[in-house]
Amino acid sequence: MTLTFRLDGGGDGPAAPRAATLDTARGQVPTPAFMPVGTLASVKALTPGEVAATGARIALVNAYHLYLRPGHRLIHGLGGVHRFMGWDGLVLSDSGGFQVFSLARLLRVGEGGVRFRSHIDGSEHYYTPELAVEVQQALGVDIAMPLDHVLPGDAPAPDQREAAERTLRWFDRSRAVGNGAPDLFAIVQGGVDEELRRWHARELAARDAPGYAIGGLSVGESKAEQYAMSEVACRELPADRPRYLMGVGSPEDLVHGVAAGVDLFDCVLPTRLGRTGSLFTDAGRVNIKGARFRGEGAPLDPDCDCATCASYSAAYLHHLFRNEELLGYRLASIHNLRYLQRLCERMREAVLDGAFETLAEEFLARYQPADEATRAEQRARWRSRSRT
Amino acid sequence: MTLTFRLDGGGDGPAAPRAATLDTARGQVPTPAFMPVGTLASVKALTPGEVAATGARIALVNAYHLYLRPGHRLIHGLGGVHRFMGWDGLVLSDSGGFQVFSLARLLRVGEGGVRFRSHIDGSEHYYTPELAVEVQQALGVDIAMPLDHVLPGDAPAPDQREAAERTLRWFDRSRAVGNGAPDLFAIVQGGVDEELRRWHARELAARDAPGYAIGGLSVGESKAEQYAMSEVACRELPADRPRYLMGVGSPEDLVHGVAAGVDLFDCVLPTRLGRTGSLFTDAGRVNIKGARFRGEGAPLDPDCDCATCASYSAAYLHHLFRNEELLGYRLASIHNLRYLQRLCERMREAVLDGAFETLAEEFLARYQPADEATRAEQRARWRSRSRT
Repeated sequence: MTLTFRLDGGGDGPAAPRAATLDTARGQVPTPAFMPVGTLASVKALTPGEVAATGARIALVNAYHLYLRPGHRLIHGLGGVHRFMGWDGLVLSDSGGFQVFSLARLLRVGEGGVRFRSHIDGSEHYYTPELAVEVQQALGVDIAMPLDHVLPGDAPAPDQREAAERTLRWFDRSRAVGNGAPDLFAIVQGGVDEELRRWHARELAARDAPGYAIGGLSVGESKAEQYAMSEVACRELPADRPRYLMGVGSPEDLVHGVAAGVDLFDCVLPTRLGRTGSLFTDAGRVNIKGARFRGEGAPLDPDCDCATCASYSAAYLHHLFRNEELLGYRLASIHNLRYLQRLCERMREAVLDGAFETLAEEFLARYQPADEATRAEQRARWRSRSRT
Repeated sequence: MTLTFRLDGGGDGPAAPRAATLDTARGQVPTPAFMPVGTLASVKALTPGEVAATGARIALVNAYHLYLRPGHRLIHGLGGVHRFMGWDGLVLSDSGGFQVFSLARLLRVGEGGVRFRSHIDGSEHYYTPELAVEVQQALGVDIAMPLDHVLPGDAPAPDQREAAERTLRWFDRSRAVGNGAPDLFAIVQGGVDEELRRWHARELAARDAPGYAIGGLSVGESKAEQYAMSEVACRELPADRPRYLMGVGSPEDLVHGVAAGVDLFDCVLPTRLGRTGSLFTDAGRVNIKGARFRGEGAPLDPDCDCATCASYSAAYLHHLFRNEELLGYRLASIHNLRYLQRLCERMREAVLDGAFETLAEEFLARYQPADEATRAEQRARWRSRSRT
């Protein structure tokens, strides 16, 4: 284990908001933190310099994709993925478990590993827990994920149980081939079955991983289930290890995740939404293509300190999107990424000031004003929790 | 007239290479110069800062496109096109004559103007020489083009003659409504008819415009015709005014254009080619998608000082293009634009050193090694000319 995790504030209970610092040889990451996704070693449409300017210190790449193309050995030969993509922050790689089970054409899943056909050229591959570690070692990432057995959210309970058990065994195998670098997180699975989640989290907690991911969420379950499962997992995980909620990246989900004790998030949402013209603001998501922005000389979000809002009017952004200009996709991606980084910064400050619940309630009331029932329920849960 | 044009070197004859400085209230442009094209007030995929970093000091926008969407009055209300797009260099606008006659659905062309349907929504518009000036004044550009009557390159001679005559009358009308800002260039037409080109250039030269464009080329005629017509026009144009060869932007065409006495160029080619992975190098165009770049750890062009070659390997560029990553389009566009700027810088230096012909011959021998016959013929023409 090379990373250390230092609690800076909060964490008053097993599943409570907290501010911490992830410390590695390559640099520090204050948490809560959002990790932009560069699936193919490129955060879509942006340079590493632009990604860093949004405040991101750690980015995600995907081992499944890079294994298939251009190949982990090629990237290794070129000096590793940081150098390949020109990013001097941290890199966390997903093992590609999710992609193997969703994007590729599955041929056979067994205890040994997964046989599948590439989604690119139909070539046949056999991916194992050991290979997933080897790929990520070759990429030279800072934090790796083990191969996990991912099921659709609506899979039957016995299948979920079997996949969770296999994920445990695969984690043990992954760790056995690791040599301490990169740091290998464990992934809590268990679908939306509270008991299964709890059991899986406990089993993994006992294995003393350098960090824990919460997987299998944001795949179609309800928001209430997502929030509840995050909390269930966090309650069982060791307080002195980072917690990473995989594939979650909407502003409201970040707030709920931090409330449950999550430290790290990743999602393609900010860049994917950005490319459709959908932009985060404290008053909710807006679509820049709307007619109201046509002649708007002010920035989209006058409160925003991103490079886009600093230099361009909403009218210009609107114009770029109406004409499908590539620059629009860039400027919107920059705004959305910076928005999430700033939200993380605000949450961190609030935790350190003991004011997280106030921030969260005010934020959600403004961001989702129509959703008063959910917020009332959430408020009640937070309050009851703060007494336990 | 607000711009001035100062000859810095060369110009030894009526159609000879030259180095000059275009001086305006907004800044200076050393020539020869290539103007990146931002049709819709955006050089595709790039920020103004990136465009400026390639060395460009003047960019092009298109009045036809901006008239249709978002509208020149809207841009005027937002402070003009420089502010709208965040570009503090010079802006030259094309009147949109070429687009009206090629992109729109023409309804009726008369002496008064052109009735057409928008290529976007089919709405009907009546575009006149006066309106074209008004649109460009509203945009607040530095240099404007008059509406010209553009014919396909293979139009019959009598039609070419009629269009050239009308373009003269339209220039007079355009100038009558101008108020001195922006500077209004005249456009030499005449297809590939040497006599017609000569006559048209003379007629316009007598009208004492602040600058001259050479239009109707790079529209399907042969390279030899393009080079010959540029030279014919340059021979008739006043030596103390800038000459702008419209729509021309391949490296070899820039060299031939400068040889004929052209100062300014514009073309979508560098950015359009860039988006297909086709990149300029001194050894000719290369396609980054080629297998030979797959594992190439060096930059695409080790001699290049662009932001792309400074930071990324050819292998990474190859990877981005193989995966259709938007960042690839950006990085390739930056390289190609910088390549043309650097070529202009090299030609300027060579002219100032009295070494243009040597540079041109060496450049073409390396860039188009297979085309020895054309080069021998060109060499003979240059040499005969330098004795006249």
